[in-house]
Amino acid sequence: SGISTLIAKGVYDAAFLFMIASFPVCFQVLHEEWARYSAFYKYQPIDLVRKYFGEKIGLYFAWLGVYTQLLIPASIVGIIVFGYGVATVDTNIPSQEMCDESLNFTMCPLCDGACDFWHLSTACGTARASHLFDNPATVFFAIFMSLWAVLFLEHWKRRQISLSFSWDLTGIEDDEVYSLFTSAAIEKLTWKDRLPGYCINVSSILFMFGLTFSAVLGVIIYRITVSALMAMSPDPETKSNVRVTVTATAVIINLVVILILDEIYGAVALWLTELEIPKTETNFEERLILKAFLLKFVNAYAPIFYVAFFKGRFAGRPGNYVYVFNDYRMEECAPGGCLIELCIQLSIIMLGKQLIQNNIFEIGIPKLKKLVRAIKDKGSTEAEIEDERPPKQWNLDYALAPFEGLTPEYMEMIIQFGFVSLFVASFPLAPLFALLNNVIEIRLDAKKFVTELRRPVAVRAKDIGIWYNILSGMGKFSVIINAFVISFTSDFIPRLVYQYMFSQTGTMHGFIDHTLSYFNVSNLKAGTAPLNSDHGDITVCRYKDYREPPWSSDAYTFSKQYWCVLAARLAFVILFQNLVMFLSLVVAWVIPDIPKTIVEQLKREKKLLVDVFLREEKEKFQLIQSLFSKDASKHPGSHVIPQSQGAPLPGRYSTLGG
Amino acid sequence: SGISTLIAKGVYDAAFLFMIASFPVCFQVLHEEWARYSAFYKYQPIDLVRKYFGEKIGLYFAWLGVYTQLLIPASIVGIIVFGYGVATVDTNIPSQEMCDESLNFTMCPLCDGACDFWHLSTACGTARASHLFDNPATVFFAIFMSLWAVLFLEHWKRRQISLSFSWDLTGIEDDEVYSLFTSAAIEKLTWKDRLPGYCINVSSILFMFGLTFSAVLGVIIYRITVSALMAMSPDPETKSNVRVTVTATAVIINLVVILILDEIYGAVALWLTELEIPKTETNFEERLILKAFLLKFVNAYAPIFYVAFFKGRFAGRPGNYVYVFNDYRMEECAPGGCLIELCIQLSIIMLGKQLIQNNIFEIGIPKLKKLVRAIKDKGSTEAEIEDERPPKQWNLDYALAPFEGLTPEYMEMIIQFGFVSLFVASFPLAPLFALLNNVIEIRLDAKKFVTELRRPVAVRAKDIGIWYNILSGMGKFSVIINAFVISFTSDFIPRLVYQYMFSQTGTMHGFIDHTLSYFNVSNLKAGTAPLNSDHGDITVCRYKDYREPPWSSDAYTFSKQYWCVLAARLAFVILFQNLVMFLSLVVAWVIPDIPKTIVEQLKREKKLLVDVFLREEKEKFQLIQSLFSKDASKHPGSHVIPQSQGAPLPGRYSTLGG
Repeated sequence: SGISTLIAKGVYDAAFLFMIASFPVCFQVLHEEWARYSAFYKYQPIDLVRKYFGEKIGLYFAWLGVYTQLLIPASIVGIIVFGYGVATVDTNIPSQEMCDESLNFTMCPLCDGACDFWHLSTACGTARASHLFDNPATVFFAIFMSLWAVLFLEHWKRRQISLSFSWDLTGIEDDEVYSLFTSAAIEKLTWKDRLPGYCINVSSILFMFGLTFSAVLGVIIYRITVSALMAMSPDPETKSNVRVTVTATAVIINLVVILILDEIYGAVALWLTELEIPKTETNFEERLILKAFLLKFVNAYAPIFYVAFFKGRFAGRPGNYVYVFNDYRMEECAPGGCLIELCIQLSIIMLGKQLIQNNIFEIGIPKLKKLVRAIKDKGSTEAEIEDERPPKQWNLDYALAPFEGLTPEYMEMIIQFGFVSLFVASFPLAPLFALLNNVIEIRLDAKKFVTELRRPVAVRAKDIGIWYNILSGMGKFSVIINAFVISFTSDFIPRLVYQYMFSQTGTMHGFIDHTLSYFNVSNLKAGTAPLNSDHGDITVCRYKDYREPPWSSDAYTFSKQYWCVLAARLAFVILFQNLVMFLSLVVAWVIPDIPKTIVEQLKREKKLLVDVFLREEKEKFQLIQSLFSKDASKHPGSHVIPQSQGAPLPGRYSTLGG
Repeated sequence: SGISTLIAKGVYDAAFLFMIASFPVCFQVLHEEWARYSAFYKYQPIDLVRKYFGEKIGLYFAWLGVYTQLLIPASIVGIIVFGYGVATVDTNIPSQEMCDESLNFTMCPLCDGACDFWHLSTACGTARASHLFDNPATVFFAIFMSLWAVLFLEHWKRRQISLSFSWDLTGIEDDEVYSLFTSAAIEKLTWKDRLPGYCINVSSILFMFGLTFSAVLGVIIYRITVSALMAMSPDPETKSNVRVTVTATAVIINLVVILILDEIYGAVALWLTELEIPKTETNFEERLILKAFLLKFVNAYAPIFYVAFFKGRFAGRPGNYVYVFNDYRMEECAPGGCLIELCIQLSIIMLGKQLIQNNIFEIGIPKLKKLVRAIKDKGSTEAEIEDERPPKQWNLDYALAPFEGLTPEYMEMIIQFGFVSLFVASFPLAPLFALLNNVIEIRLDAKKFVTELRRPVAVRAKDIGIWYNILSGMGKFSVIINAFVISFTSDFIPRLVYQYMFSQTGTMHGFIDHTLSYFNVSNLKAGTAPLNSDHGDITVCRYKDYREPPWSSDAYTFSKQYWCVLAARLAFVILFQNLVMFLSLVVAWVIPDIPKTIVEQLKREKKLLVDVFLREEKEKFQLIQSLFSKDASKHPGSHVIPQSQGAPLPGRYSTLGG
């Protein structure tokens, strides 16, 4: 649209003339060396990709490559951490105590009327599973992954500078920022003209957030009602499978809702951005990405946030439960802790999203579209065959799907980066699954770009733009989220507090007893006691909370332990957040932004330039001298050599060297 | 030292030739318009300063100007916050309760043997003074000042870009980073050669830290012993003035120690940096600044940190006090709270440091040196007078002190910035004092540069270098420090918790009673009870802490209230830190780095360039066309206009336009 971009494009097209000759070779190599699953272990031929598809797509694949490569160490550490959990599950005292039938903790019923008292040892399975993800190694892993995120960003910064140096992208910086002279009409829009657009924007985004939250709420209500109904069922088998059935179906519903809303939100973001009438192309893209990211992020993570930080915290206590719709008790976490539920939720959504998106949206739908197009175009192609000419390239190209921008590709990866960084404390295998997905994803994308899409117009870009900011923002956000997951969702802090403050022996023995409060069954509200109990004469049942026992003067209020554990949890958050932020700063400071090889190359180039310049100056000086000596022989006495006159010229040099 | 710097200097000197003609005028204007106290309300003639002293000094004064200017709103808000404290001191319920003699709280003795029980109402004065600095407005002010620090940095970034644009400094960037080719000998030093230097460095810095901490410890011991000795004195007047005398003398000792160590640390930092043999000049300066900053920062703030976060926290409780040297009880905070002590410490060190440094180090010593030099040089000057010639400029210049770099000037301001940002929650008048100091400081520095120092060699610089990083680091650090001061040093959180959790009426009535624990006098250790008491038969005394009463089953352990308040304090830290960090990000994001006027100017310039370029292209095209038409008339049939040939040329354009 602007004059200078037109010129720049002209330049680009002209430059392209030189490259176009090598395209068929290029295509061949890309097809054979890059767009194949069997090449998964190889480095990508990024320079070729850039040559064939342009800088923007080249940068995407380079970025994806760096990300995938760095997932390897993260996966290995994740596997080791998970292995530590597996190895220590049998020696772990809390899970041993939970499985120990001789300890005989009688727990308060899980629902009103239909549910009976139960023994804690029946929850042995979840307790053991919980230990796999909820152990001290997880804390180490959360710190590790926070630093990993910083390392990844720093590494990418270096790679980007290397690429922009070898692809000679440094010059286009200013073009992008200032040169898009837009039509005067858009330029002249005042804030009053833009106000309605902004209002629609804000209200639409809030409405979409509302939609997401209602979807989450709907699933919660589904879980509450269905589990209540199933608990009342006379069939004992239905009863025993309540938790598994409900959790599994609910997560699947969540997943389907996320996938559907994801598609809707993409369209909504586009519509909203068009309403804003951004001034420039770059501006448009940035706003679109930000909006789409915001909507999709909330969509993908809302159910996970609910499980991590809210589930089970509003359930009340025996004798004073919280009810929704007057009849249904708010849901609680599994007896093994909330972390195992978070882990299930996270893994299913992450895996499901990746598998479904890869298979259906990225392979299935394009294939389907291609098929439809092929059938449609059959007539015209047949007409051409009658002409007995080979089909032209542009016709072959037309049979391919159009290129729809890199935004969906980046978005998918960024949301995945969220799974890897935000809640990694609850699921140390996330990097491994991400790695496996990405190894396929690279080749899948490559295949798609090479064979299934029309070759996109090559677009220049000096960096990955706003995606970097989003990544960096997520990295920062992940620190506080992980701090809260470790301190509030996992049982790490209560265990530490028990061991060092309340344990008589300094060991973990007695921890389970310590976390269970007492409840006097006679304090149950009328009609909520078990209708028919197999447990005979029970006067006191236990529940997981830190509250005063019934025989205390202020029964059922939060006990001293509660406040003590809460203080420890909060102190841990402060410690963790500030430690990780400090370490991140150190890591970012230690790793120089510009790789050493490039610094040296720049130095060499500069030295060369200076040498050339000096030689020229010397020659000029000699020339002047010889002229003067000739002159001087004619006019003796005026023999002043203007040595300083050469100097003002290098002023130009410093801008050329930049 | 490198070739290119030599060239660059050559250029600079050549460029200087044009300017030198205007120097006397320049000097005159600076002397009359800038280096006078009466010009304090005026903007500085920064462009003239830069012309006369070079970019580096120009940037310093520009920075100092921006900082001082932004201190004005901070001072105004600080005065309003302080005014709020003054206005509400009479209606404040906690200080009313403390002054209310009818409530009759009998407090446990403040020292062993010599001290008697005492009534809380005698501490009424400090309670009222405390409210001036410890009220809800302080919390608002701390948030405000954290954002102010971000705003200041952003504002400076914009100003710097404006200056570097109008002074044309953009080009020198790369020169600074890559061009200092150092001698091969230094280049070849391996880490093994550098190891001893680093070892000496680290150990020396640790030793200096040790020195600072021992000085702080020495003052603490002074305070403990002197107050114990004075309390034992038979003179009642000495006894009643214990706290005031001890606090005042201790702070003065602190101040003197800080001023002496400051000078020593400056020299040590220089010596240590020389040991490291840094590769470049810039590198040398950066390392020197970092080391000097680290040492001086710890020196200036160690006593303040002690008062803010450690004083009174290790004193123990009645019946179980902590003793040093077996005889002296650890010191406690004043009954009004620790914040008032922090405030006294802060204000005296800040004011004392500024006054003494301004008067003695910046005015007194230079004058003294000048005097000494004048006396010394008397002989030679007299000899010259005999020659009956006017004294030469270089002789006049020699009579002036040499320029010792900007580091001390910046350092003084950065340490002051620390007082304004780090502990501002405890002393809202700090910005006002800083403002008053700086208004004088600018003119004092100006006077010094214009009249008292030899004119320094003009040095180019594109920014204020590492000082920006130090400022930004301090801004980040101040967030967490202010969070801790508000939640742990002030009584803000305990008051909130009391009002919303423990108060029966929802008001602050009864707060003082709630913060005082009970102690059974019979539990005092033998020999620590008051030797002669005026209070008759006392069985229970009170002390400020949240502990179980003597009649509880676990007497004197921390009570539920203690843990509850602790949790609230920690939650506040998390909330405050993350809120301020988030707001800072928003502020930094909202304010564009490059001022709009400059963006537009760049656009205009670019457009101009493009226009010129297009005209040239057009002319070239017409020329070619006319040539071809001439040619064509000779060779008809080859009439192909090579339109695309003009295009590859603009490739140069994009780098020139940068």
